Amino acid sequence: MNRRDMLKLSSLAAAAASAPAVAEAAATAANVSSQVPRWDYLEINLAGPTSGNPFLDVTLAATFHHQNRSITVAGFYDGDGSYKIRFLPDEPGVWTWTTNSNQAALDKKSGSFECVAPGEGNLGPVSVRDQFHFGYADGTPYVECGTTCYAWAFQAEETQKQTIQTLSNSPFNKIRMCLFPKWYQHNRKEPSMYPFPRDGEKNDYSTFNPAYFQHIDKLIVELRRIGVQADLILFHPYDKWGYQSMPADVDDRYLRYVIARFSAFRNVWWSLANEFDFMKDKTAKDWDRYARIVADSDAFDHLRSIHYGYHQYEYWRGWCSHAGVQDSRMERAAGWRADWQKPVVFDECKYEGNIASRWGNISGDAMTRRFWVAAAQGTYCGHGETFIHPEDILWWSHGGVLHGTSPAQIAFLRKLLEETIAVGPGQIGFTAINDDPVGARRLNDSVIFYYFDDHQPAESTFNLPEGKTYTAEYVDTLALTCTPLPGEYAGKADVKLPGKPWGSLWFRQKV
Amino acid sequence: MNRRDMLKLSSLAAAAASAPAVAEAAATAANVSSQVPRWDYLEINLAGPTSGNPFLDVTLAATFHHQNRSITVAGFYDGDGSYKIRFLPDEPGVWTWTTNSNQAALDKKSGSFECVAPGEGNLGPVSVRDQFHFGYADGTPYVECGTTCYAWAFQAEETQKQTIQTLSNSPFNKIRMCLFPKWYQHNRKEPSMYPFPRDGEKNDYSTFNPAYFQHIDKLIVELRRIGVQADLILFHPYDKWGYQSMPADVDDRYLRYVIARFSAFRNVWWSLANEFDFMKDKTAKDWDRYARIVADSDAFDHLRSIHYGYHQYEYWRGWCSHAGVQDSRMERAAGWRADWQKPVVFDECKYEGNIASRWGNISGDAMTRRFWVAAAQGTYCGHGETFIHPEDILWWSHGGVLHGTSPAQIAFLRKLLEETIAVGPGQIGFTAINDDPVGARRLNDSVIFYYFDDHQPAESTFNLPEGKTYTAEYVDTLALTCTPLPGEYAGKADVKLPGKPWGSLWFRQKV
Repeated sequence: MNRRDMLKLSSLAAAAASAPAVAEAAATAANVSSQVPRWDYLEINLAGPTSGNPFLDVTLAATFHHQNRSITVAGFYDGDGSYKIRFLPDEPGVWTWTTNSNQAALDKKSGSFECVAPGEGNLGPVSVRDQFHFGYADGTPYVECGTTCYAWAFQAEETQKQTIQTLSNSPFNKIRMCLFPKWYQHNRKEPSMYPFPRDGEKNDYSTFNPAYFQHIDKLIVELRRIGVQADLILFHPYDKWGYQSMPADVDDRYLRYVIARFSAFRNVWWSLANEFDFMKDKTAKDWDRYARIVADSDAFDHLRSIHYGYHQYEYWRGWCSHAGVQDSRMERAAGWRADWQKPVVFDECKYEGNIASRWGNISGDAMTRRFWVAAAQGTYCGHGETFIHPEDILWWSHGGVLHGTSPAQIAFLRKLLEETIAVGPGQIGFTAINDDPVGARRLNDSVIFYYFDDHQPAESTFNLPEGKTYTAEYVDTLALTCTPLPGEYAGKADVKLPGKPWGSLWFRQKV
Repeated sequence: MNRRDMLKLSSLAAAAASAPAVAEAAATAANVSSQVPRWDYLEINLAGPTSGNPFLDVTLAATFHHQNRSITVAGFYDGDGSYKIRFLPDEPGVWTWTTNSNQAALDKKSGSFECVAPGEGNLGPVSVRDQFHFGYADGTPYVECGTTCYAWAFQAEETQKQTIQTLSNSPFNKIRMCLFPKWYQHNRKEPSMYPFPRDGEKNDYSTFNPAYFQHIDKLIVELRRIGVQADLILFHPYDKWGYQSMPADVDDRYLRYVIARFSAFRNVWWSLANEFDFMKDKTAKDWDRYARIVADSDAFDHLRSIHYGYHQYEYWRGWCSHAGVQDSRMERAAGWRADWQKPVVFDECKYEGNIASRWGNISGDAMTRRFWVAAAQGTYCGHGETFIHPEDILWWSHGGVLHGTSPAQIAFLRKLLEETIAVGPGQIGFTAINDDPVGARRLNDSVIFYYFDDHQPAESTFNLPEGKTYTAEYVDTLALTCTPLPGEYAGKADVKLPGKPWGSLWFRQKV
């Protein structure tokens, strides 16, 4: 498929996305008085110079005004004389805009649009809510439930379609994905496109390959259509093409380019890196600079984090909205949450599968357990899957279809958590039981749950908040059954339990 | 039963113990040229004054000579004008002895005995071997496999007999037991005897109750008969009688008394306390003093440690022969081992059971897993059991019978470990795999095993020591099956595995 076809496809995808489920719109400069649903995006298309090197020579930005606010966003060159500015309006009403460029053809263009009510399924971008959690801009809680398909953007088109299909029927509402192709075990194919023009082993870092990024546009919009957050991994070490050790000015230009392109998509998150500490050519100062560029350039303030291999990142740093740890020591979640005072997401806790590598062969029950242990501490776990496959299509990197047992169990947990949040106030606390963080409880006074892990009490006593009466339900977290327990519970409540491991007990306030 | 009957019973037990399986002997002062099997004990019985307070007024010790060695041990008063000195001879040949006392009737008594070859089943006392492990004095490795029956010494006689019977058919070769009675949940009965004469709520700390300690003598000898180490807990906080807060001089006299009584039994270990940090009336200086008394007074240098509740003891201290931790974070074992450079025993990692308290309701599989995780790191785990019982007889405190599923699984592991040690050199190393100590291996070059925990590789690659060829066996640690894998393995070995969790892989060098 050539770039023009890709553009057409992109338009088609955008059109498909304007179906009633999730309203989409793209305004052009000629269509200045268009309507844009809130948290959708406006795209201003301008024709400009093709001579010289537009990527380096042309500056372009637009300032958007709404009442007393003004927001400036950078534009980007999309090839073939096409210049674009994308904007994510977050407030209803009339917005006006004016461009600024060092090229007359692009300078001082202006227009306006009306930001109208969002369509069905458009809940706005996700941000941090209640210190340790997340929520959509429309107020709906977002129960983070992520998976990982690092290199799905670079697989066969059929596999990409399968990935979207699989995701839309899965519990996963976030996907970690790399913006650069991947070279690693099970990942030994050249991608069909490169982000920079490439001649043999040589990259031309002076320009970008717009088709490559247009393809990513399309995938992000597809994810947005099915309600999945795209956690975009900006750098990673599993590379044979040179992208892990580009000159500093190229790194910076690349960051500004992808931010200009993608930040108007409400479902974008930024992850500075996968396993930043494995990228030996980069220094702590480089990472600080990248963090500053992302934080400063993204006018829409998407969620930001970074993922490490061995050396835990200092997640207390201000630029991080949340922690994206790689660790299997789930019991440490509560301590980290308390230390960092922000949401803790286990972006990687090893993967369900059966490959030789130890990071890729935990059992489905073990994966589900990790989700529960994280949830019981008021934190979030991440999924991935690595089963041996005859064509080497492993969900963790390639996407495709899921083979494991944990997704159904994780779906069950996500549903329970979403119901909890629906009935309780926004703030969700956390109190450990004794010295054992795994036997933790998640508390919002209306719903309290305990996870028993490999414990099997046949009876136990629970101190419920005073002055409230609760019903109780025993949940088998692996068999996915909910069994109401007889009676009502209040104060210091003795409860008879099945005496089996992997259970959870849910108290719900009677109303 | 009165004290004299108890004494008779004690003698009977000693007589029973001289049956072929474990030879026993007790020499009297009149029987100076008797034979004593190596690592058995000599008991010198002397008649002395009954006036005044023999516990406080009379000093008694004996010095034993063998070739160029001389060892002085304290005697003790056993009531009714009976004074005793017990000695554990560790070298064959003729030993002579002379007493020293401030009482003429006990002073300058002398005699001799011949230390002869030990009887069958008498392997000598256990000490630290190869830095991180244990061995019997005769050279046989001792694979520590402990359980806990804190207050079994204070239960109905029938239950005590049951405990011995159960232990003799169990995998457990060490029992943690308190020298003071216990008052705690499930432990709300007065003992039939007290260590000090007691009038209402008042203890007479100026004397001891010999019958109480004669009973403990008998139990230790019973444990010795069945090959079980008696890990004697000297102090503990679960008390209603005052023993947790005695005057300092009473504490010290008590320690010297039990050391004089019990240290000639080769199966004795000393644990300064159960949960020392929960004993609020004792200071760090008290614990230092107790440690010094035990280390200085025990002429036979039995194994010594201490057990904590929340605040981990500083096990690097020189007086400790090994660590006796309370913790469920099994994955920390390797780190502690490296820090302390001594054997690490998880004396308490919670108990298999179903009671309300979280420390007493892990599943049998969870208990077994903890043993494997400890073993795979070259450390040792401890068992205990707390199932709800109609008469409140819980193995963890009362002994009796076992109800859980883990003992059979633990027996299976112990057998595998003992076979490993039998075929390999004494030194057993440990190397972690990557960042994940749970996926550890235990290595003596002749036998290498991996424990996969909740991982389920369907294939994996192992780096075997160079120049050796191995056979491989897949072990299901819960189903207790061993399945030989086809072929031979050497160097960087690819192995096909069942792809199930809770497995272990054993490489054995071909000879």
